[in-house]
Amino acid sequence: MDPLTASEIAALVGGQLEGEPGRLLSRVRDLREAGPEDVAFFSIHPGLGGRGPGLAERADFAACKAGLLLIESAADAAGRTCVRVKSPSLAATILARHFCGLPPRNEPSAIPPRGPVRIHPQALVEEGATLGAACVIGPGCVVRSGAAIGAGAVLSERVSVGKGSIVGERTQLGPGVVIYAGVHLGARCMVHANVVIGAPGFGYAWDGKRHLAMPQVGGVQIGNEVEIGAGSCVDAGTFRPTVIGDGSILDNMVQVGHNAQIGRAVVLCGQVGVSGGAKLGDGVIVGGQAGITGHVSIGAGAVVGGSATVGNDIKPGASVQGMPAVDIGLYRRMQATLRRLTRQSRAAASDDSSGG
Amino acid sequence: MDPLTASEIAALVGGQLEGEPGRLLSRVRDLREAGPEDVAFFSIHPGLGGRGPGLAERADFAACKAGLLLIESAADAAGRTCVRVKSPSLAATILARHFCGLPPRNEPSAIPPRGPVRIHPQALVEEGATLGAACVIGPGCVVRSGAAIGAGAVLSERVSVGKGSIVGERTQLGPGVVIYAGVHLGARCMVHANVVIGAPGFGYAWDGKRHLAMPQVGGVQIGNEVEIGAGSCVDAGTFRPTVIGDGSILDNMVQVGHNAQIGRAVVLCGQVGVSGGAKLGDGVIVGGQAGITGHVSIGAGAVVGGSATVGNDIKPGASVQGMPAVDIGLYRRMQATLRRLTRQSRAAASDDSSGG
Amino acid sequence: MDPLTASEIAALVGGQLEGEPGRLLSRVRDLREAGPEDVAFFSIHPGLGGRGPGLAERADFAACKAGLLLIESAADAAGRTCVRVKSPSLAATILARHFCGLPPRNEPSAIPPRGPVRIHPQALVEEGATLGAACVIGPGCVVRSGAAIGAGAVLSERVSVGKGSIVGERTQLGPGVVIYAGVHLGARCMVHANVVIGAPGFGYAWDGKRHLAMPQVGGVQIGNEVEIGAGSCVDAGTFRPTVIGDGSILDNMVQVGHNAQIGRAVVLCGQVGVSGGAKLGDGVIVGGQAGITGHVSIGAGAVVGGSATVGNDIKPGASVQGMPAVDIGLYRRMQATLRRLTRQSRAAASDDSSGG
Repeated sequence: MDPLTASEIAALVGGQLEGEPGRLLSRVRDLREAGPEDVAFFSIHPGLGGRGPGLAERADFAACKAGLLLIESAADAAGRTCVRVKSPSLAATILARHFCGLPPRNEPSAIPPRGPVRIHPQALVEEGATLGAACVIGPGCVVRSGAAIGAGAVLSERVSVGKGSIVGERTQLGPGVVIYAGVHLGARCMVHANVVIGAPGFGYAWDGKRHLAMPQVGGVQIGNEVEIGAGSCVDAGTFRPTVIGDGSILDNMVQVGHNAQIGRAVVLCGQVGVSGGAKLGDGVIVGGQAGITGHVSIGAGAVVGGSATVGNDIKPGASVQGMPAVDIGLYRRMQATLRRLTRQSRAAASDDSSGG
Repeated sequence: MDPLTASEIAALVGGQLEGEPGRLLSRVRDLREAGPEDVAFFSIHPGLGGRGPGLAERADFAACKAGLLLIESAADAAGRTCVRVKSPSLAATILARHFCGLPPRNEPSAIPPRGPVRIHPQALVEEGATLGAACVIGPGCVVRSGAAIGAGAVLSERVSVGKGSIVGERTQLGPGVVIYAGVHLGARCMVHANVVIGAPGFGYAWDGKRHLAMPQVGGVQIGNEVEIGAGSCVDAGTFRPTVIGDGSILDNMVQVGHNAQIGRAVVLCGQVGVSGGAKLGDGVIVGGQAGITGHVSIGAGAVVGGSATVGNDIKPGASVQGMPAVDIGLYRRMQATLRRLTRQSRAAASDDSSGG
Repeated sequence: MDPLTASEIAALVGGQLEGEPGRLLSRVRDLREAGPEDVAFFSIHPGLGGRGPGLAERADFAACKAGLLLIESAADAAGRTCVRVKSPSLAATILARHFCGLPPRNEPSAIPPRGPVRIHPQALVEEGATLGAACVIGPGCVVRSGAAIGAGAVLSERVSVGKGSIVGERTQLGPGVVIYAGVHLGARCMVHANVVIGAPGFGYAWDGKRHLAMPQVGGVQIGNEVEIGAGSCVDAGTFRPTVIGDGSILDNMVQVGHNAQIGRAVVLCGQVGVSGGAKLGDGVIVGGQAGITGHVSIGAGAVVGGSATVGNDIKPGASVQGMPAVDIGLYRRMQATLRRLTRQSRAAASDDSSGG
């Protein structure tokens, strides 16, 4: 992409410029590496994890040689050219998207056209599958009968789509993605390599001799503009679909059990596990490796800390941490109490021994 | 499948009918969605997780419009047609299996026969591999020399089977499954997409400059009717096989380290990690995300809570929770004690400040 | 491999022989299974997990019928032929590597030569990709334009290598491995089945309506002789590469977030999660299922216990455990304190009730 002037950048991100309006900038970079043609960004407010910038990051900011800084109004630019915005990370994201263009489509280049679509000769599209205009079916893919691939969708390579499953328009499926039967995947989703959607949920009843599998025929319903990280799994529901709402984002290796109902714009960080039947309201954020027990309900906008274990319902907007997860304030007090009692206990033991 | 009458259902699940014997039912559904032709089920007893039905579920039960209810003897049917059974979930499973039929075999339909078997032209079966009658080798599969595929086994698509590995009769391997060399997989197993079995275990010795890999030549031995969820990994043993006994069920993204010895009918929920050399007796149940440290032994029938970390041997039949995992009663008392001390500590601080 | 005499073994592993120098040994086996032609090993010192041999293992050692024992100088051989070494496990590893040979290359046997390389007809190598001498491209692989495969590298089957990515000399990629664009993978690495390297990192900014993805264009830089276990994921950095240093070893299902900087000879056990931007110094060891919060720094040689959650910087050489992770000594005292207070609390309650 062509470079932008500082004043063009201020307009693009909706911020206020201080310094040289005509300075030319061509990309976004890290504080430490940014040079005169680069834009860097720095936030003084704590992010989701509750951590503001550390001493090292503050020092990097002070020493930063970027041609333009994206900062909050309260930050000290020390005379450098800057654009002041409400959210430096949002401004940097908007700007980086401008400079980098859209994320590239991931299909191999050598896929020949077959009528209005492109299908690699080493793909297997069964009779009765429907292919939307300008979709791409890469090498090693298998599209089963009754499946419907939306217009402009991309199955990069070695992707399976099961019977009757639907892939929405312009949705992209990375290498090795497996969609079982009965999955409805919305438009403009991004599904990364080796994700598995719609495998039968983990439901069994003990019959006295063995674990008898309950049929899992509910399928999966995923909204529009959902992103699913590499290696994640979303299981099929038992009688009704497992649901993920529009705009939710799942990091790598996230497990979503059968019948889970996940709202819109939910954030599930890496290695999170959502057990069967759990409900997560719109905008819930779950930190990495946290686990949600089956059938609990987490209210809209709640934040679950990384590695927390949620065993009970959580109110909307609450912030919880720990195992079992409790209000984050209580969690911190419990930790502080235990540390204090441990110190006292040691001091008492030391008194005893010195007194003996 | 054809519908069944209420009295036929009572006979099928071994329960006692109350209400209209001739009512026709055609499927099992959730309490909330079930209508006059549907069967629903409801348990008043707590399940494995120790949670009985909540208020919402009790309300759903009270309002349920199902044509037939599967319930325990102590439940109040409020005059509705019902079949009373010992385990409503088992009865529902038996009935759903009747209505839904066996889980469908997962191979693409377009695989041409080659003698007594079916092999897709885009599969690679090396010389010296043995194929049992009526087995199916889908597109993109690689079966190496010395491998033996049992009669009726299905390698759906893009499945690898390593040198000398054995896949039992009627075992089904989902898309993307990778079986390394030296794996014996029993009959009628179900292995879901992207599972990896028999990769070399994680064993190294530090030689002063680098981590030197110990050869892992023990392979894997998996019994009959084992189910392995999507994305799970079972590593090869060092000198003797990693073992999983008959009828055990593993959910998605479960990690089983080298030399682990897992008994029969064991349940490993999603994202569980079993470290190298751990032993799990028959019928052990491990909740989601729990971790089992290397070389510990968990007695038959023990239950490990979700997210627990087991660092010591567990007695047969015990129920443990926490990090480190302790008896579940002790775990709860420890949590209650810490909460009480935290409250007291706060009250004391509040007294101090009001007193000052 | 041919058998070795006990004295040849002593020379190979640099130890001191006691007993019959001419005894012939042909493999390494477990204590319990070793017979007169086998070598077994036994350590009295605790390993990384802090656990020395248990009673069962000591009994196995006492009863062991191996023709040769690899033991420490302080162990009691009870008159059996033995080689005394500083590290029995290192000696056993050296010896097993001698007997087993190098780990076998994993490509199918039936790949025809195409000039100086071997490419399976069902592989897709785009124009503009570079293939080093004697490399092997198995069936179902896709190598995109601008990718460079090093001499002697092996892409076993169904491996993708993205645009401009580099695979070092003699590196082996197992079935189903996906390398996105912008990845530099060093020489002699071993990457196991279904690993994903270089998928876009999990970075978003909320724009008031949706999570807007930050472009992740930094790629991944992986050193030489790195081993990555099955199903693991290493994400691309945002503006600069995610880094893994020479000789580091990752077990199965490890997640490494964007911008993480992992040093040399680091050990990440199964299911570990390293969040975005975390720094791990050389030789750090992280136990299974542990989680490292974003942007923390772990000093060289530190040890993080299994299932620990690291939320703050850790000093070099420290050993931490718990959630949140603290010094291991403090962790143990905290646990002991809580158990003691729980017992006292119960005794007090019991006094109260008996007194009432």
